[in-house]
Amino acid sequence: VSEGFEEATKVELVDVDGPVQRYRAEVHDGWDIGGNANGGYVLAIAGRAMAEAMDRPPLSVTAHYLAPAPAGPCEVVVTTVRRGGRLATCTAALVQGERPLIHVLGTFGEPTDGGLRHMEGVPPDLPPYEACISRADVVSAGNTDVPASGLMDRLAVRVRPGDLGFITGEPSGKAETAGWFAFVGEQPVDEIGLLFVADAMAPPVFNLGVTGWVPTVELTVHVRMRPAPGPLRCIFRTRFIEGGTLDEDGEIWDSAGNLVAQSRQLALAPRGA
Amino acid sequence: VSEGFEEATKVELVDVDGPVQRYRAEVHDGWDIGGNANGGYVLAIAGRAMAEAMDRPPLSVTAHYLAPAPAGPCEVVVTTVRRGGRLATCTAALVQGERPLIHVLGTFGEPTDGGLRHMEGVPPDLPPYEACISRADVVSAGNTDVPASGLMDRLAVRVRPGDLGFITGEPSGKAETAGWFAFVGEQPVDEIGLLFVADAMAPPVFNLGVTGWVPTVELTVHVRMRPAPGPLRCIFRTRFIEGGTLDEDGEIWDSAGNLVAQSRQLALAPRGA
Repeated sequence: VSEGFEEATKVELVDVDGPVQRYRAEVHDGWDIGGNANGGYVLAIAGRAMAEAMDRPPLSVTAHYLAPAPAGPCEVVVTTVRRGGRLATCTAALVQGERPLIHVLGTFGEPTDGGLRHMEGVPPDLPPYEACISRADVVSAGNTDVPASGLMDRLAVRVRPGDLGFITGEPSGKAETAGWFAFVGEQPVDEIGLLFVADAMAPPVFNLGVTGWVPTVELTVHVRMRPAPGPLRCIFRTRFIEGGTLDEDGEIWDSAGNLVAQSRQLALAPRGA
Repeated sequence: VSEGFEEATKVELVDVDGPVQRYRAEVHDGWDIGGNANGGYVLAIAGRAMAEAMDRPPLSVTAHYLAPAPAGPCEVVVTTVRRGGRLATCTAALVQGERPLIHVLGTFGEPTDGGLRHMEGVPPDLPPYEACISRADVVSAGNTDVPASGLMDRLAVRVRPGDLGFITGEPSGKAETAGWFAFVGEQPVDEIGLLFVADAMAPPVFNLGVTGWVPTVELTVHVRMRPAPGPLRCIFRTRFIEGGTLDEDGEIWDSAGNLVAQSRQLALAPRGA
């Protein structure tokens, strides 16, 4: 049985000193790509500590990425900035020894029910879950040099046919990746899980035939609602590559048709095609 | 002659203590709406201190808004998180006395020339600058209760015909505001200016006939390039109002046809129409 997401992002309060709360945690093995932990996974560890310290779920969380994250023990230092009635704001530094891996700023609070609703957009139009493609299947078919990623054993992600074409040298030509997100074993995805989902699919830019490392500078996730049970419909797009950077926008929709999260990241652009 | 943006966002280094650099600054009068300084203006003050401390322009900056900002002296406390060869990351707290107004996290660095360029999108299609509408003109025409804003004297913004309809009770029905941005007197807009531009137009949600306060929780600006001279083409859209919050996405394009900044904010949704 594969280790669950909740276990892999567990945090333990070890010290409180005024506005500073220190949590012990661990970057677990097997949530990596090529030996470095996935960016959304590391954000989820910090986000869990922040949510516990603020005693409410994330509403808007921004992480800046400072260094690759190998597996091993880490510490999350949460500092309260302002604790209000509805909203609470704090920062977090996730460090391994003396080495900071990410720095995070977030505001936490419950979404409200009722009120105004206005939606200019719909969930991505995807084939049924069963008709979409598992990355592990493409990789294990053997017609590629892409290494199997530890992460793939943790996830039951199914990608829209064509969007994994970059793995076998047939990029779709459009900087878009869409698909269904689920953890293995139907583990529920809560607000902390959404922080992970926001960075769980391959960079859409790969479908332009671009290869190489796409290091995230900054990732922001807006949590709009706690997801209803079931696989999530996701779409990620890169629209503008310019000045050495690129954007990546994500939408995550639940089985009830609610937009549960939006994400945007700025990443360094690979040098060329 | 109206006070310039650079003067109004000036910062002065007063103290360095390890990774912490303290700047004296002032929230100037006349950059407000209804007595509270504009959110982009306050961000620009903090952003200028951060850019000076990091000695490079902003690349990605996120502000969380904690309290309204009246005019008066303030302090920006910049703390270096990581200073690398190309990129440098820091936080900033902008405080008045003991009261924190915003907390900011940003990464700073020069954009790179050349390399990959891929643009899925074009500047907003606007009538010529002269054919667009000045907010001050609409307000001073007198057929509205909207108070003249101090900010309007500082700006030479011209909005797409129809997009100011909400002022006179004729909202366009589409949550979009587009127009030309310029400071009065043709002051140039640099990277710090872009932080201000990202929040300088009226909330697009007003064009759904929604009124009331739309407090920003979080604003992120990606600076993609230093703008070429001349008015900037801007478009801001709200797509999803749900769970008590709304998004607002912005694109800012320069006269050379480059996307110079993208912005996104999460704001609290007004209670109803």
